[in-house]
Amino acid sequence: MTNTTDSASAQPIRVALLGCGVVGSQVARMIESRKEDIAARVGRRVELVGIAVAHPDRPRQGLDSRLFTDDPAALVSRDDVDIVIELIGGIDPARQLLTMALNKGHSVVTANKALLAAHGTELHAVAEDNGVDLYYEAAVAGAIPIVRPLRESLVGDQITRVMGIVNGTTNYILDQMTTTGAGFDEALAQAKTKGYAEADPTADVEGYDAAAKAALLSSLAFHTRLRGDQVYREGITAITPDDIDAARDMDCVVKLLAVCQAGPDGISARVHPALVPATHPLGGVSGAFNAIFVEAREAGHLMFLGPGAGGSPTASAVMGDLVTVARNLVRGVAGPPQDVYGEFPILPIAEVRTRFHLRLQVRDQSGVLAEVAKIFASHSVSLQTVQQSAVEGTDRADGWSATLKILTHEARECDVQECVNELTGHHYVNSDPRVIRVEGM
Amino acid sequence: MTNTTDSASAQPIRVALLGCGVVGSQVARMIESRKEDIAARVGRRVELVGIAVAHPDRPRQGLDSRLFTDDPAALVSRDDVDIVIELIGGIDPARQLLTMALNKGHSVVTANKALLAAHGTELHAVAEDNGVDLYYEAAVAGAIPIVRPLRESLVGDQITRVMGIVNGTTNYILDQMTTTGAGFDEALAQAKTKGYAEADPTADVEGYDAAAKAALLSSLAFHTRLRGDQVYREGITAITPDDIDAARDMDCVVKLLAVCQAGPDGISARVHPALVPATHPLGGVSGAFNAIFVEAREAGHLMFLGPGAGGSPTASAVMGDLVTVARNLVRGVAGPPQDVYGEFPILPIAEVRTRFHLRLQVRDQSGVLAEVAKIFASHSVSLQTVQQSAVEGTDRADGWSATLKILTHEARECDVQECVNELTGHHYVNSDPRVIRVEGM
Repeated sequence: MTNTTDSASAQPIRVALLGCGVVGSQVARMIESRKEDIAARVGRRVELVGIAVAHPDRPRQGLDSRLFTDDPAALVSRDDVDIVIELIGGIDPARQLLTMALNKGHSVVTANKALLAAHGTELHAVAEDNGVDLYYEAAVAGAIPIVRPLRESLVGDQITRVMGIVNGTTNYILDQMTTTGAGFDEALAQAKTKGYAEADPTADVEGYDAAAKAALLSSLAFHTRLRGDQVYREGITAITPDDIDAARDMDCVVKLLAVCQAGPDGISARVHPALVPATHPLGGVSGAFNAIFVEAREAGHLMFLGPGAGGSPTASAVMGDLVTVARNLVRGVAGPPQDVYGEFPILPIAEVRTRFHLRLQVRDQSGVLAEVAKIFASHSVSLQTVQQSAVEGTDRADGWSATLKILTHEARECDVQECVNELTGHHYVNSDPRVIRVEGM
Repeated sequence: MTNTTDSASAQPIRVALLGCGVVGSQVARMIESRKEDIAARVGRRVELVGIAVAHPDRPRQGLDSRLFTDDPAALVSRDDVDIVIELIGGIDPARQLLTMALNKGHSVVTANKALLAAHGTELHAVAEDNGVDLYYEAAVAGAIPIVRPLRESLVGDQITRVMGIVNGTTNYILDQMTTTGAGFDEALAQAKTKGYAEADPTADVEGYDAAAKAALLSSLAFHTRLRGDQVYREGITAITPDDIDAARDMDCVVKLLAVCQAGPDGISARVHPALVPATHPLGGVSGAFNAIFVEAREAGHLMFLGPGAGGSPTASAVMGDLVTVARNLVRGVAGPPQDVYGEFPILPIAEVRTRFHLRLQVRDQSGVLAEVAKIFASHSVSLQTVQQSAVEGTDRADGWSATLKILTHEARECDVQECVNELTGHHYVNSDPRVIRVEGM
């Protein structure tokens, strides 16, 4: 049992903080306001020795102005630092600063998904060479504890698939489109008003943020290293109210999913909008919440749900890492090593197998359905259901009056793409077919 | 990066297994069938050196008969053992065997919730004295990773409440009652037929199993030690179809909940049936699934969902601990210490504050509602809604023809109990009032 009185007298664990925005300022305040609890949990006091910010002269409520510096490189090079917390984000200069910190023998806690997804292999190697820790729970799905469950709790099992709603902004937008009937632009504007979307929403709506998280989730789940640029990526900007309606017709909702799969041929990671059954645990995840659904060979189906962003939740995840790393320092050990042990083939999206939903407007005449079915059969794509209906409001006399809605069984992406190529421009088919992948059915 | 070739040549990590039932045999098979993966993840081979069972001569498919012994004490005393996995359950002789194993310097992995809930403090002390590990992820909610998230991921935060559906048998029974209208006895019989309930279902339906898990969850969440017998406990045997209907009227479902709370006055842990809103994440947890809902000051609301029992899921959790402990041995360290640092007052159930739903049959005459409301007011119990309705099928002429359904605001259990005492036997009130606690509203 740890004794708070003893711990207070020993040398404290000294922390340098890089960045003092929404998350950073919350972390700084928690280190101060929760110091008794933290000392009890760590076995020694934990104290801030410096905070690197762009404008050190700007007053910040509740934080000692003497801590601030605009020289992060000098801060991470100090001898009187044990742990560096990095919350500035982006690749540069975070990469150089963390490399300096690790080489200096400081352990690192970071929430920087973009940096880890791009340069994780290199940074973990530097940490290992120096026998120090590199922890990053806050980088994947905010406050949802997912790194330890994947790295440790499920390490004796074999994870076959991870599906996640890992971007709150896009989940909020799709939710708005579903519940209010709004179009994408309108829902995005609402998200901006509510503070759920940034002025430049590209990283969220184009799926870059989710792709970085998919890379980290794949690396953890499959005990390998995947970079963000190896993740197939489609955003949600092309999603229309018609897509939302088509989903509803099938008792589904549209979600931006990160899907990480491991199979005999290799692993794949992809981010794209998908139809998910409303009754699937992921189908009920609304608003800015995040959720990770894990399929493991022995454990079966697990789900982790929680707030995926925000100052306090992200700060909670950072603090969990800080206490864990500080405990390791007190015990004189590093945390469990990154157990990367395999390089697996990474399947291109063309080779990935999943299910597809297609909508196409066709000529309303006999033989069309047979012709379309023949095209799918010729590419070995098996159909589960085909639904033909009149297009509302169109003049049946113009001949383009039927909509075909098709749900395939599991099929290879490239085979479905060839069907789409044949259908596009076919004399029975008007306009390009609309294709959305289907997951969790 | 761990190298499989090196690891294979080093001394293997040697495992003794106590018990070879549904979970034990699955663990034994996984150690054998997944040995390449495990060696890669641990950094050394992991091998079984003995399995203690009651009948060593009974053939067991896929397992080497030479491993079996009926002398568990001799097995845990062997020098050529590094880790003991205990899956025999119950207090004795598991307690003596694990004490021997820990004192011999062996690390221990166990799924034994009853033992830990009764003697966890003593066993953790023995483990710490010997500098070895005692891991128990499988003891709480089967395959759901909850020990590491509470012990490590959320350790920098302050958990205020944990609510869990931690017993699959009772969740299945309540689910059946809800969906089919069956009574308790009928639903229990179905659960037995399906293999979800044991021949003697007492531990499940009376809440003993859930209470042991509530003790472990409270200890982890609040960084203290709580024993199973300190958990207030009510089972589900008294739940009637009328209760289920009353829940449905309020858009709620009846769940057996483990509720662990921390407040300024102390902590409390209780297991009892409760009304939970159907829209609450716990309200949608059906069948034999388990779920843990965590409320933390900074992280907000988190939920962990998964299979709570069964051979393979429980084996998955045991294997995760085995790999983690084996990794610790390879690195020559013990895992992070149990960070128990506080003894908090444990509130008796009478002092616990929550919301209550009451149903009572009353005389259908003017003044009754005012009289009932006065009784609640006199005990400082504030009411949110009171609904009065005619009792179907009763003769209004007999005078006992109205039902009052009352939902309180948050109130102290003892205050509500005093209201119930006053109402019971009151000349306006027929029969005892029915009281069910309400959570998550």
